[in-house]
This record gives sequence, C-alpha cells and structure tokens, in this order.
Amino acid sequence: MTVTLSDPTHRAALAELKHLLAATAVERDRAGGTAKTERDAIRRSGLLTLAVPPGFGGAGETWPAILGAVRALAQVDSSLAHLFAFQHLMVASVLLYGSAAQRDALLTETVRKPLFWGNALNPLDRRTTLTPAPQGWTLDGTKSFCSGASDSDMLLVSADDPDGRLRVFVIPTRRPGVAILDDWDNMGQRQTDSGTVTFSGVPVDHDEILGPPGPFGGVACTLRPLIAQAILAAIYLGIGEGALAAAREFTLGSARPWRSSGVTAAAEDPYVLHHYGELHVGLAGAAALGDQATARLQAAWEKRDELSPAERGQVAVAIATAKVAATRAGLDATNRLFDVTGARATGARYGLDRFWRNLRTHSLHDPVDYKLKELGAWALNGTVPQPDFYS
Amino acid sequence: MTVTLSDPTHRAALAELKHLLAATAVERDRAGGTAKTERDAIRRSGLLTLAVPPGFGGAGETWPAILGAVRALAQVDSSLAHLFAFQHLMVASVLLYGSAAQRDALLTETVRKPLFWGNALNPLDRRTTLTPAPQGWTLDGTKSFCSGASDSDMLLVSADDPDGRLRVFVIPTRRPGVAILDDWDNMGQRQTDSGTVTFSGVPVDHDEILGPPGPFGGVACTLRPLIAQAILAAIYLGIGEGALAAAREFTLGSARPWRSSGVTAAAEDPYVLHHYGELHVGLAGAAALGDQATARLQAAWEKRDELSPAERGQVAVAIATAKVAATRAGLDATNRLFDVTGARATGARYGLDRFWRNLRTHSLHDPVDYKLKELGAWALNGTVPQPDFYS
Amino acid sequence: MTVTLSDPTHRAALAELKHLLAATAVERDRAGGTAKTERDAIRRSGLLTLAVPPGFGGAGETWPAILGAVRALAQVDSSLAHLFAFQHLMVASVLLYGSAAQRDALLTETVRKPLFWGNALNPLDRRTTLTPAPQGWTLDGTKSFCSGASDSDMLLVSADDPDGRLRVFVIPTRRPGVAILDDWDNMGQRQTDSGTVTFSGVPVDHDEILGPPGPFGGVACTLRPLIAQAILAAIYLGIGEGALAAAREFTLGSARPWRSSGVTAAAEDPYVLHHYGELHVGLAGAAALGDQATARLQAAWEKRDELSPAERGQVAVAIATAKVAATRAGLDATNRLFDVTGARATGARYGLDRFWRNLRTHSLHDPVDYKLKELGAWALNGTVPQPDFYS
Amino acid sequence: MTVTLSDPTHRAALAELKHLLAATAVERDRAGGTAKTERDAIRRSGLLTLAVPPGFGGAGETWPAILGAVRALAQVDSSLAHLFAFQHLMVASVLLYGSAAQRDALLTETVRKPLFWGNALNPLDRRTTLTPAPQGWTLDGTKSFCSGASDSDMLLVSADDPDGRLRVFVIPTRRPGVAILDDWDNMGQRQTDSGTVTFSGVPVDHDEILGPPGPFGGVACTLRPLIAQAILAAIYLGIGEGALAAAREFTLGSARPWRSSGVTAAAEDPYVLHHYGELHVGLAGAAALGDQATARLQAAWEKRDELSPAERGQVAVAIATAKVAATRAGLDATNRLFDVTGARATGARYGLDRFWRNLRTHSLHDPVDYKLKELGAWALNGTVPQPDFYS
Repeated sequence: MTVTLSDPTHRAALAELKHLLAATAVERDRAGGTAKTERDAIRRSGLLTLAVPPGFGGAGETWPAILGAVRALAQVDSSLAHLFAFQHLMVASVLLYGSAAQRDALLTETVRKPLFWGNALNPLDRRTTLTPAPQGWTLDGTKSFCSGASDSDMLLVSADDPDGRLRVFVIPTRRPGVAILDDWDNMGQRQTDSGTVTFSGVPVDHDEILGPPGPFGGVACTLRPLIAQAILAAIYLGIGEGALAAAREFTLGSARPWRSSGVTAAAEDPYVLHHYGELHVGLAGAAALGDQATARLQAAWEKRDELSPAERGQVAVAIATAKVAATRAGLDATNRLFDVTGARATGARYGLDRFWRNLRTHSLHDPVDYKLKELGAWALNGTVPQPDFYS
Repeated sequence: MTVTLSDPTHRAALAELKHLLAATAVERDRAGGTAKTERDAIRRSGLLTLAVPPGFGGAGETWPAILGAVRALAQVDSSLAHLFAFQHLMVASVLLYGSAAQRDALLTETVRKPLFWGNALNPLDRRTTLTPAPQGWTLDGTKSFCSGASDSDMLLVSADDPDGRLRVFVIPTRRPGVAILDDWDNMGQRQTDSGTVTFSGVPVDHDEILGPPGPFGGVACTLRPLIAQAILAAIYLGIGEGALAAAREFTLGSARPWRSSGVTAAAEDPYVLHHYGELHVGLAGAAALGDQATARLQAAWEKRDELSPAERGQVAVAIATAKVAATRAGLDATNRLFDVTGARATGARYGLDRFWRNLRTHSLHDPVDYKLKELGAWALNGTVPQPDFYS
Repeated sequence: MTVTLSDPTHRAALAELKHLLAATAVERDRAGGTAKTERDAIRRSGLLTLAVPPGFGGAGETWPAILGAVRALAQVDSSLAHLFAFQHLMVASVLLYGSAAQRDALLTETVRKPLFWGNALNPLDRRTTLTPAPQGWTLDGTKSFCSGASDSDMLLVSADDPDGRLRVFVIPTRRPGVAILDDWDNMGQRQTDSGTVTFSGVPVDHDEILGPPGPFGGVACTLRPLIAQAILAAIYLGIGEGALAAAREFTLGSARPWRSSGVTAAAEDPYVLHHYGELHVGLAGAAALGDQATARLQAAWEKRDELSPAERGQVAVAIATAKVAATRAGLDATNRLFDVTGARATGARYGLDRFWRNLRTHSLHDPVDYKLKELGAWALNGTVPQPDFYS
Repeated sequence: MTVTLSDPTHRAALAELKHLLAATAVERDRAGGTAKTERDAIRRSGLLTLAVPPGFGGAGETWPAILGAVRALAQVDSSLAHLFAFQHLMVASVLLYGSAAQRDALLTETVRKPLFWGNALNPLDRRTTLTPAPQGWTLDGTKSFCSGASDSDMLLVSADDPDGRLRVFVIPTRRPGVAILDDWDNMGQRQTDSGTVTFSGVPVDHDEILGPPGPFGGVACTLRPLIAQAILAAIYLGIGEGALAAAREFTLGSARPWRSSGVTAAAEDPYVLHHYGELHVGLAGAAALGDQATARLQAAWEKRDELSPAERGQVAVAIATAKVAATRAGLDATNRLFDVTGARATGARYGLDRFWRNLRTHSLHDPVDYKLKELGAWALNGTVPQPDFYS
C-alpha cells in the first residue's frame, strides 16, 4: 500500500541509490564520519528536490511518496536515509516559515545547485544567540545534534534574540565564523554527522530570518514537528524492515537447523517460523499505521492555512501512534533477528548489529514514554497533543 | 477509516441494535442461554440481508461494511455479534457453494422471511454421515460447536457421504430428526448457542446439497474460510475496543487516584495514561491491519472466479495478520483494563471480566501459534497458507 | 525449597484441607457467598493457630512455613486461602500492636475456641469513627473490603478518634451494633466475603484498643503491612501454580493436537511445550524470589524490636520484588493456560477462568505500577519504601 | 545471597581484577583481539586455581563461589569473564574425564605454573580426526569457536578416532602443528578469542587422551555441560547487572529530565523509576534462580559418582531455568538501559551498547527456544533433559 514516487526517473534513481548505499553500508557503519561519496551520489540523484513544489522547479512529491523513499533507504542505510529525509524537512521549513520571497529565492536555488541542507535547529540546546548588528544580527554560540551539517551547503539555524524569542534562519554553511566540529562518534546512526556546530560572530542578514510567518505563525507552522516525527517513524520502520530482510537472507542462505530440531533446514524450524510470524505482524501493523498517518499528514499539508487545531491534533495522534508502533516493532526485529540466524550471524563482517544500534540510537530522539502519555491522554481524555518541537 | 453501511436506514438500525444489546449485555452474559429477545430484534432490524446481493432483494453491502457492523456490535456484545456475523457467513456459503438455482431460492427466501441461519458445519467434528435414501440422503450423527443453531430457521450442515467426501447442505432447523441440545455453557461467548446438534434419520434432498460448485469448486470457494477468519478478527478487535471504552468510562467516572500518585484524578495518573497509550497503539494497529485485510477481501470477492491462488494467498496473509494482531491487542486490553480502573471495577455488577472471558474463549477457535507459523512461512519463504477450513 | 509446616499433624491437616477445598472450588466459585462448610473445616483443622506463639498454646510456625501453607491452598482455592492467611495476619497484628496483657488474653482465646478472625481495618476507608463514651468509646460508621468478616468470631477494626488518630482495636463480631452486609459480589475471589461492615453505636472498651505500642509503635509495628504484602505474593504465586497444574491436567488428559501440528498428542506440540517452558520459568522465578523474601521476613520478625529502618526497608524491597514477579507470572499463567488446552477447556464445568478472575481481582489490592516505582527508587537511588499500610 | 570466595586474599584479588578490567573495557571492546595484559593479570591474580582441589594445591572453591566470581567479572567485562570461567570448566573437565594420574599431573601443573587453559572441544564441529601413530595418535583438522585458545598454555581438544568415537584430550598449545588463527572478529564478546584452531600432524600421546572414565564415563561425566551452562547463566546475569549499574551511573550523573516530565531530575521521572523497577525485578528473579541452580550444582558435584540420572536431571532443569531467565532479563536490561539514560548515552565513548552486543552474541551459544522446549517437557511431562553437550 506504500505510495511510490510518481516520476519513473525518480523511482529508478531511488532504486539505484538504495543499491549503492547497501553495497557499502556495513563498512561505512564501522568507519563512521561523513559519507562524502554517498552524499554526492544523493546530490546527483535528482532526489534532493522531491519536496520542492513544481512552481520552484521541484518534483512536488507528496509526503507519502517522500516518506516512502525515506523508508526504502532506511532499510539499508538509516544514516543516509536520515540526511536525505532532513533535506526535505528543511525544504518544508522554508515552505512553512518563510515569506513568499524567501520561499522563491531559497527553493529555486535548492533546485538549481542543488543545495544539500543541514540542520542546526535543535530547540533543546539554547546556547546560540543573536545580537543586533548594523546589517542585521550577529550569531554566536554552539549547537549540538546538528544532523547533516557536515558537507552541507545551507544550514537551518535557530537562536534566541535579545528578547528571548526563538528565531529560525538560513545561512550558507561556508560563511566565515561557522565551524563544524565533526565530533559525532556514537554507537549508531554513525554517518548522520549529528555533531556540534559553533558560531563565532557570524553575520546574519535580516532577510535570512525566516518569516513572516516564521516558526510561530499559526497552525500550519506546527506541521513542521509532525513532518519531523513522521520522518522518524519512517526511518524506524525502515530499519525494522531492513533487519527482517537481512535476517531472512541469513536464515535462508547460511543458518543451520539446531541439532534437536528434527528438521533439515533452519527455514522449517517451528520456532524460527514463529519468530518470523511475530516480526511480520509487528512490522505490518507499524506499516499500516504509517500509511494512515502519512495520508493524514498529506491532507493536512494540503489544507495548510485552513487547518484547524483539532485537525492538526488528529494528525499528531496518527503520527505518534505510527511512531510508537514502529519503535516497538523495530526494536523487536533488530533484537530478535539473531534468534532466527544463530551464533555465526554475529560475525562482524555481516554487521547485523547495526540495525539495533541505529534504531536504539535514533529512537532516543524523544522518549517513547512521553509519546505514550500523550496518546493515553488522547485515548482517555480526548485531548490532542499540544504542539511543540517534539509533538 | 472504518467503512460504514451505505444505507442510512441500516446505519440507524445498527445503532439502535447496538444500543439495545449494550443495555442488557452484562445480565445476559451471566444468564447465558439463547438470547431470544435480541435475536428477534436482529430479525426485525433488517440487517440479516446485508450480504445478500441486490439481485435477490438484499442490501448487497461490501465485506468492509458488514465486518464494520460486526465489529461495532462486538464492542458491546460479542456473542450476538458472532451470531449476526455468522448469518452473513452462511449467506456467503450459499453464494460460493450453491448452484444458481440454490442461490436464487435460498437467498430470496432469506430476504423474504427473513431467515436467520445457524451453523452446523464444524469440519473438525466428523461424526455426521449421509447415507443414500430413495429421495436423496439420510443424515445421522452429531455436531459440536454449532453456533447459532438454537432459534435458527435454517442450518448449514456438513457430513461425510459414503465415499468419505464432505458434503455441505442446508436444511430447515425444524425438520424432524434435528435436535438442538442447548448444552452450551462456557466461560465466555455465553450466548452464542455454540452447543451440540444431533441428527437422527433426517432426510436430505438431493437439491439441498450445495453445488455445483460445492465446497471444493475452485479458488473462489476457498474464500469462505477467509470470511470466517475475517469475522473472527473483527470480533476480537471489537471486544478489545469495547474493553477500552468500558475502561475509559470507569476511569473517568469512578476510578480514584492512588494515594501516592500525587494527582487528583485517576485520569491524570502518569501510569494510567501510559497504559491507555499502549492500549491505543495496539488496538489502532490491529484496526489498521483489519482495514487493509477487509479491503483485500472485498477485492478478491469481486474477482470471484478470476481469483488466482496467489492472490487468494495474499488475502489469507492479510487476514491472518489482522487476526493475530487483534488477538494480541484484544487480550492485552481485556486484561489490562483493570490496571486503569482499580479494585472496585471488579464488582460483578460491572461485568468487566466478560471482555476477557469472551475474547479468551473465542480466540481459541484455532491456535494463534499456527497462524504465526503460517505467517512466518510467508515472511521467510514467501509461501502462502494452504487453503483449508481454518486458513 | 519451600518450607513446610514443622508438625506432621499440621502437614496432614493441610493436605486434607487442600483436598477438600479442591473438590468443590469450581462450584463454590460460581455460587459465591460465605463458604460456611469450608470455614468450619478450617476451624476444625487446627491450623488457625499456626502463627500463635507456643507460649500461648499455638503452633508457633515460621512465616516461611505459614506462607507455604497459604500458597498451597491458593493453588486450589484462593478465596479460602485468603481468609486462612488473614487469620494469621490478625494474629500478627495482635502480636505487633497489642500490649502484653492483650496478647496473652486474645491469643490464648484464639487457641482455646479457636477464634476465626475477620478484618475491618481497610485504612483507605476513613468512614469509621470513635467517640468517647463513659466506659471507653463508641464506634460508628462503615468499612468496605472487610475480608473474612462474615462468619468470623473476632474483628480487627480501625477507626479515627476525635483527634483524627487512627486507632486499631478488636471486638467480637457478634457484638450488638455490628452488621455484616454480605454484599461482596465480585468477578473473582468470590468467597472472601470482602464486603461492607457497618457499626452503629458499638461500645468499645479501653482495653480493646490495641496498644501500647499500637499501630505506630516503632519499626517492628511496620512489619504488619509487610506480612500483608507477603501474603498477597504467596496467594498470587499459588494461583499461578494452580493454573499451571490445571492446564497440565487438561493438556495431558483432554487436549487434542492441532490438525497441522504433525504430532499425535498435544503434549508433544512444539508450541505447547514452549508455552509450558515459559510458564515454568516465570513461576519458578517468582517462587525463588518468594523464598528469599519470606526468609528475610522471618529474620526481621525474629529481630523484632532490634530491627532497624534500613533492615526493614530491605525486607520491604524483597517482598515487593516477589509480589511484582508473582503478579506478572501469575497473570501470564492464568491467561496463557488456554493456549495450551484449547477451545474445549472453556467449558464452564472446568471453571478454568477462575484462576484469572481470582488473580486479576486480587492483584488490584494496590497498584503494581506504584510497587514498581518504589522498586525503581530502590534500584536507582537506593531509597527503601516508606512504611505505610501498603508498603 | 550470592556466595563469595572463601579466601580473603582471593576476594581482594578478584576485586582488584574487576577494577582493572573495568578501567579499559570500553576501549578493549573496540579494539577486539587478545587481551594479553589482562590475561597476564588473571595469571598473576592467583585465581586460575579456584576450581583445583586442595589436594593438588588449588583453592578448592565451590561452584557457587566460582560462578559468583565469574558473574562479578562479567558485570564489567564479559569477554574476560568468559575466558576466566572456561579455565575452571577445563579444570572440571580434567576432574571429570581424567584418570587419577592425569588429574594429579595436570592439575598440579595447573597450580604450579600456573597454566591458563583454552578450549578446542566444540562438539558441533566434527572436522578434527585422530589417526593411529606409533607412540599414540596424530591429530589433524580444524575447530571453530575455540574460546581462549590464543595465548593459552594448554588446550582441551576433541576429535573423532577412526571408529568415529569422540575422544577428548589435552595438549600444550605450543606443540608444533597447532595453529591459532586469531580470526575472531564478532559484534560482541570481542576479546574471547573464540576463533579457529587448525591441527596439522600433531602428535598426541596415549596418556593425553582423558580417561578412564573419559567423556562417556557415567552420570558424573555429564556434569560438564551443566557447568558450561551454569557459566553461561552467570555471565548473562552479570552482563545484565552490569548494564543496570552503568545505566544507574548515567541516569544519576548525566541524564536530564524530559521537558514535559514536570520533575527536576531524571532520577525522579515516574517512567524512569518504573523502568528501573522492572529491570530490578527481572534481574533479581534471574539471580534468585541462579542461586538455587548453583547450590544444586554443587550438591550434585559433591555426590559425584553417587549421582542418579534423575538427580542430574533436576540440576539440569534448575540451570536451564536460571539460564533462560538470565537471558531474558539480561536482554531486556541491555536494551532498555537507553530508555533511562537518553540520547546522549549513545556516545561511543561510553560504550554502553557493548552490554547488548556481548549478551546478544553470547546468548546464541545454544537456542533459548530449545531450552524452553526442554523446560516445557519437564513442566508438562516431568521428563528431564537428555544429557548431551548442550543440556
């Protein structure tokens, strides 16, 4: 039921990209760092413009199609899938927060170059400030968890102005004063370049500050965190599906039946089959919820300024539901895959632990317990999640 | 996303029926036995003809709409929902197994009277036989688990002929020699009348034997067990949703916050909210899978004689997936509802244990472990379930 | 490893009592109400004095032995096991709260008659009051959840005095003004007589008020709620073990192998065996934790006035751990037993749902979520549970 | 309740060794390979002789004490704990399989040097053979999963003789023809050196073949796999406990409360506390079962030649129960630790994923599903596991 990209050229480019990422995913997971070759392949793929409306020269794909592409890549390489997805989130941010002139300038340029966007918006880290300067503002401070900043062309940044108001703006990554520390060295999502960026006296022009409407411009603006959450759900699901596919390949190709199993192939073992059945049910449920949620997201996206808070809330509930289900089903799949493959599947050359490490890392973006609390408030009291940067 | 009945009169009748069943569900659960009043209300509701094609005067509703009605009733009374659902399964059996003349005669009559059908087909119980007789056959023997036989107008029966072939046929319930033992006294689904029926020298006419095509007439015929399985999935889901609704009513209306919770209402307790969140995610996932499965079932139903074994297999996988998910989510909801309501919710007058007793009983129709094994074979080896009376 | 009663006569009496309770447990569960015959059998068994020290003529058994007896009875009849257990809790209350003279008088009488004690102490229900009267006090008001009050000889009661202080005292059940409403009609633990007791102008003598030390007399006094919690853990474990035993009997004696299982007996089915394995591991773990906890309880009991708050806290942690484990393993066993027995095991005559109904009801005594929170505070912060009526 | 080493010098040496291993565990996990420095520290610790009876100059510790030491080391470094544990398994093998002369010679030497033993006995890999030679035999072939072979002094080896009989024997690791490939590069247990060993024309003396009694010498000989399984259970439990300890350190020292939690420290978050509570209950249950199992193992060890098959079976059941519980509780702890620490805990410098990688790898030694099947056969049918190399 998953929606695919509408343009056959893009579908072919996606398939090729997935193939290319899969070929080196295990070794690049070990290496960590910036996947320059693969980032350039994404640049060349033509897929950086999926979310850009046709009016600016982009592909104008729907969110179901874009998130389907994210999920497909996450099945083989969830780090690059994350960077790929955040490109579209940054484009959406410009569309939601930017003025007409900003949208035109930035998105036309995004298509033309193309621009690969990085993220420096982490709203939990309030160490960046804007101080007034003659031509606009001066940006100073530090941001952590800046996914995709390395090797990016443009950055979406947030900082507090002197009134304590959060401003969101865009600057070229290469602007003097911007330093990307390349200090991301984590147990999973190792090539997301989610490290620290520092800013020292970086000039920011008035018209680089997104808005009006800016980030607090109404209900439509609150779709951004929902897109972010939907991206996470798509990646988590993709990781789980990737784990299942890798398990399947190993069980069919390499696993041996246990000595007391009474069967001649691991693929006939009653317990192995039962595990696959449970993994299938879990992932299929998460996928079905994901399909529902992305369809609702698209409907809300199309309503844009007519969207009511209650409608927005329903989308938030649908996405949160899908995300929790994907987290649970994915963790189960990435953990249990070893029960259907056996001891030899732990060989480092197979890299089968990367699915768990990637999902375990990424699933901590915001706590599943508080998503469940929000969903409980909905199920029990009928209240929808309050919009903020994580809901 | 659930599909509703297309006819507003039927929708209103369904709502009224649900209301009526809900009012006495607790006391009737305690009493057990045949729900004569409620069965007659179903007869009067006009809903017995939902599955009968318009050509025979029926409503010609789709399976998504019919199963949606079953699920709605199961939320308040899963026994009557089962009897209601089996009516449509019996109609489908006539449509799938019967000759053109049989379909015409039986379904026209089903609409005209209307006929309430009962089931005596349990294929695991092979104690009924047909022996040749001058005008056709003579039926003797015993059938267990004959849901809805009591107070029925017509029975769908299976028996072995002298060649050991399973024959499926229809006879009026009141035909001499048919005895309904009313011996169903189980811990759950207490008003499904799923007891024993005995047959002593019951004459069966040649043209009461369904077919051609009969039960083994091709791929389309194997849709019957899939409809039966889809009904089970709809009922299990409805029970789970009913448990959640009942829990909600109690938490909001009667539950007290725990002494060390630090909140003033149970509905604000962080653990209570978390439980509701998890129940919501589980049931929403089962519902999403159910929606997918019933849509596939309808497509297969419409293809009928053009349906390929592989396509049929895909439907079987979708329904099995939804059924396993509904079983799991439902058992969790019916069990955990007490953790969100507290000790006083165990009062017999609330009857809140009936959800678990009903689901626990009904979920044993066929083992979930073997459904998971079949789904595992699909996920791992790509093989679809072999059609039989349970797959 | 379970400790048995030291006196062979008591062991034989216990075995006989268990046998007697088992014989009618299913039908008495259906009937509910006061199990007069069985209560009298307990009276005659000589086991009401297990907790009474030898100095007062009692058996002076240890808590491991007493709780072992409770668990054994709970395997077949958790209602009567509860009443039996509360007898010993009431005796312990006299030992902990009473003055030397009270202990002597009340426990000697408990052995002589023997007295069967009932409970009217529910500290969450503050509707009972003591007002001063010439010879002592006058008791008025209502108590809910008074387990074992019906047919009891003595009652342990709590009420607030005019200063709002909780007083605990003992009165004969037959004293004028005491009315036992026999209004307990719940889905489980149906013969625990845990209904309402009302008091109208009931005279209470000064020397019926327990103390000094009374309920707030120091660390030793706070052992009472721990004994109560240990009793709950023993009953929950017994219910789970009883469910496993009943399942086993059915699987071995009546269950049929599933049609596609490829085995000739349900007892050889790989999934059935796997379920039994998991139930075994869960219950064995709860039992091992129970053994540890009751041993610690006994050590604390023997230390009595030398017990430090920290030591008391360790006992509380051990008992809470065992109780949570017994709740989880028991719920799993009572729910899953149907997966290893099949559809016919839902026949009402087997009464196999009573295990779940009993445990589900009893496990709501106080919320498992808050026990887990306390245990988390211990595991994370090293803080022991604050003594109160539930910890 | 855990039994500690009886000799204070050994206890101090163990504490020092644990401290030393903890200091570099994260970096050595990353490096993999042979932990020469740490292996030499084990050699110097005096702890290689724990299992050697005093008659041969050893410490003669009990299995509960030895396994307690293994568990303690596994809390910080499960690779070295495994090598440490296998030393004692090899000593036990000599004690169980060797003749009086062999026991004397080999164990006296083990104490004197001391000898660090490696394992080349993997019974699933039948690629090694013994062919007759003038002075005894010639060994050829390959063994996989040879834990601790690298840097070892002595090897315990198995091979088939020309009659297809499995022989177990001991040779010095440095004997010509023995090649240790150092090819172990797996996702977990990275310093167990569990790689491949090849043998090319290696002479084996008659008196290096262990026996009589040899590996098939009676019930006592079948204690060897039980010791191996008990070691696994101790390591799994230690890993789980280590994960909990590491989580605790992070939650208390570095974690931040979630923005909508309403608390000022992560250690007060209701969901964080609940997780800790559940982890505590799971690990405490596994520990209690482990204590019971090792006590039974010790009793069986002391009975040695008087041990009956039924008694041996009871020990096997107890150890299997403890092992399954440790696997489950450990996997839960190693996975869930991230839910109580948050996103920053995924930094590679903390190495917190090593607990999961180690346990996930090691828990595949033999399938938990088949252990559960064996335990189910015990719980349902009362049959004890058939002795073999994994039961």
